[in-house]
Amino acid sequence: MKPCVVLQSDFGISTGLPASMTAVISKIDPEIRIYDLCHEVREYDIRQGGMIIQSTYPYWADGTIFVSVVDPGVGTSRRSCVAKLDNGSYIVTPDNGTLSYVIDHIVEVREIDETVNRLPGSGGHHTFHGRDVYAYTAGRLASGIIDYEGVGPKYDVKDIVIFPKPAAEIRDGMAYGEITSAHDHFGNVGISIPNEMIKEIGISTGDYARVEFIKEDKVVFDKVMMFHKSFGWVKPGELIMNECSNDYVEISVNQGNFCEIELPELLKAYDLSVYKVKISPVKAD
Amino acid sequence: MKPCVVLQSDFGISTGLPASMTAVISKIDPEIRIYDLCHEVREYDIRQGGMIIQSTYPYWADGTIFVSVVDPGVGTSRRSCVAKLDNGSYIVTPDNGTLSYVIDHIVEVREIDETVNRLPGSGGHHTFHGRDVYAYTAGRLASGIIDYEGVGPKYDVKDIVIFPKPAAEIRDGMAYGEITSAHDHFGNVGISIPNEMIKEIGISTGDYARVEFIKEDKVVFDKVMMFHKSFGWVKPGELIMNECSNDYVEISVNQGNFCEIELPELLKAYDLSVYKVKISPVKAD
Amino acid sequence: MKPCVVLQSDFGISTGLPASMTAVISKIDPEIRIYDLCHEVREYDIRQGGMIIQSTYPYWADGTIFVSVVDPGVGTSRRSCVAKLDNGSYIVTPDNGTLSYVIDHIVEVREIDETVNRLPGSGGHHTFHGRDVYAYTAGRLASGIIDYEGVGPKYDVKDIVIFPKPAAEIRDGMAYGEITSAHDHFGNVGISIPNEMIKEIGISTGDYARVEFIKEDKVVFDKVMMFHKSFGWVKPGELIMNECSNDYVEISVNQGNFCEIELPELLKAYDLSVYKVKISPVKAD
Repeated sequence: MKPCVVLQSDFGISTGLPASMTAVISKIDPEIRIYDLCHEVREYDIRQGGMIIQSTYPYWADGTIFVSVVDPGVGTSRRSCVAKLDNGSYIVTPDNGTLSYVIDHIVEVREIDETVNRLPGSGGHHTFHGRDVYAYTAGRLASGIIDYEGVGPKYDVKDIVIFPKPAAEIRDGMAYGEITSAHDHFGNVGISIPNEMIKEIGISTGDYARVEFIKEDKVVFDKVMMFHKSFGWVKPGELIMNECSNDYVEISVNQGNFCEIELPELLKAYDLSVYKVKISPVKAD
Repeated sequence: MKPCVVLQSDFGISTGLPASMTAVISKIDPEIRIYDLCHEVREYDIRQGGMIIQSTYPYWADGTIFVSVVDPGVGTSRRSCVAKLDNGSYIVTPDNGTLSYVIDHIVEVREIDETVNRLPGSGGHHTFHGRDVYAYTAGRLASGIIDYEGVGPKYDVKDIVIFPKPAAEIRDGMAYGEITSAHDHFGNVGISIPNEMIKEIGISTGDYARVEFIKEDKVVFDKVMMFHKSFGWVKPGELIMNECSNDYVEISVNQGNFCEIELPELLKAYDLSVYKVKISPVKAD
Repeated sequence: MKPCVVLQSDFGISTGLPASMTAVISKIDPEIRIYDLCHEVREYDIRQGGMIIQSTYPYWADGTIFVSVVDPGVGTSRRSCVAKLDNGSYIVTPDNGTLSYVIDHIVEVREIDETVNRLPGSGGHHTFHGRDVYAYTAGRLASGIIDYEGVGPKYDVKDIVIFPKPAAEIRDGMAYGEITSAHDHFGNVGISIPNEMIKEIGISTGDYARVEFIKEDKVVFDKVMMFHKSFGWVKPGELIMNECSNDYVEISVNQGNFCEIELPELLKAYDLSVYKVKISPVKAD
């Protein structure tokens, strides 16, 4: 069976843009299964797009072809590429940082040769590479019309644009990291600190922790809350630091929206990495 | 042909969470057709999740496997189950009230045995049962890897957690009920009173009715409006009580948003059943 | 292979309504591939629905069956129809203006005979023709249960309800048009003026242009900005008039939301055609 194609973008869902990518692929080959990963990546938030790919790709079958279009530089000179992962899956994307969080799993990368891999007749369009180049290339790769070499010339994996990894470290018995996500739906906040690191500083499930957010050396949030396996362990309306399904901790309000209640500015911040996080154990009296 | 799997959750669509359920199922068996029912169930609103399943399941083919994950108690002790309906369809869900509105159609229920039906390697995760348990179980059931007995041990249908049915009754020539839904998109408000009950109290299409909403013994809305078959029977901007496609009445503004205009608090209320409704005929002068 | 069915509506995604259309079609024939085009068309915005169909249908395979349900008149007397396009594709829709922008490509139109093409048992519902009539008819057409003649009686293409085409013309060296879309996600504003017309008035990529919006003879926006191939050609936060992938120009803020920043009323306006646009070249000093 042919590999499936999985589409991600920051296009939102109030236009025909995401479906135009599906259209191009299904027109190339109606047998290809096409799924949506997420089209509500925060506008221009390359980091979030990259993290969604990183945290979800292992759940898809090996050999899946991902298309990720978060592309503030569309129409300018950034490179378009297809990266091959060590499980045989592919990511079709602008080479603009999206690949940062899977960089250790990339075994090869090729630049898309648009003289071959561009929807015929679309040469006059400069702003919809998602449809005209990325979806078109993914569809042809999935259907077997081109093989990986047919994407275009190989380049050095070391030349891929990457963002620095979100920091996470232990100093003086406290865990330091940064905010990696702010969920507009549930309102929980993702932190770059792994569940395990919390335990290393002596905080077990059921213990209390002090959580501080610091932006430009100013403390913008500072509260004590329980640490537990999931947000359901505190009463509705209460704060909690819980283990998240991506192996990192998150800050939540059980049955409430942390961001709206405690720090609405997070929902508007495009670079969440400016929010540093400090977590300290709280000793029972 | 294998049954299709239909996914519902309150995850929203701004992350990779809904697609992670699709990933797990399509990895188990790429032949399974996977559809989304709704992932914008109001956060933690078990009642809405249950009502969407109840009002839509008959339109899907018999034997369809539904997954519904509205799960404020994730990671705590609520039971995970697969209910079998009298048309051969299944619902995979936390047993937390979601099954309330289809309870009369459930012929058997089984608790998911997580020692068997859990994504290998996911044992350390406590918050994403939608992916690791529910989608995984649904995918294996749909593909035929397990049969219904393979889900886990049967338990008594009488032990399923259910909410009381929304009240609807006639007293002194008036219809009494409660609000069952508040639609953030069109803004119309669903009422627990069937179309037929309106007619029983002497209100025919084209007649006028007085509609009152009462919260904690205080009247929060009280207006007279036409009753008709659909909202298009009044002028744009006018109030109407119309028959809804689920056989119950709703309150709308033609080409406007009732909630935003008349009672925005409904859009933020998690338990809409506290809003009681009283409908009385209005005699023509 | 059977044609695919592509669904559009203004139902939003917070209920089971869009999926109910999928349900009906997949129950008729599980082999039919069903895709969503867009369910977040602005409520009751027939123009937007029509423009999304017009700008996307050529990217789908010839013979595709589109269902478009933006239907402020549901339950009243507007005609339900299936239009056949010159590429063999079909559009199943209320005949209420949705077909305006593809009218030159329609080769035949038939009124849906609801005595045949209506979901059995749904006769008592007056508000969900999307499910009970349009999806049902599309599914039967896609599966081959009915052929095009089986839809119902043919009527004159000249009798199709159409809106006037958005104006676009050159007068005295300036381009005049109107606003055609206001995107709530990125915030960019679509204009009825083709890319080519901008060049005809002497504005080349990299040149500056004065852009005015006039509502009821009052200027509500008036600024000078660069014209270029895509929004990425100005710095983040700067205004730009850029070529759009549908061959018309749009007004954007690079990495910002034009509507929110400059003219939020656009996001609430249901008839955007009342906003007239005037574009003039700006001579370099």
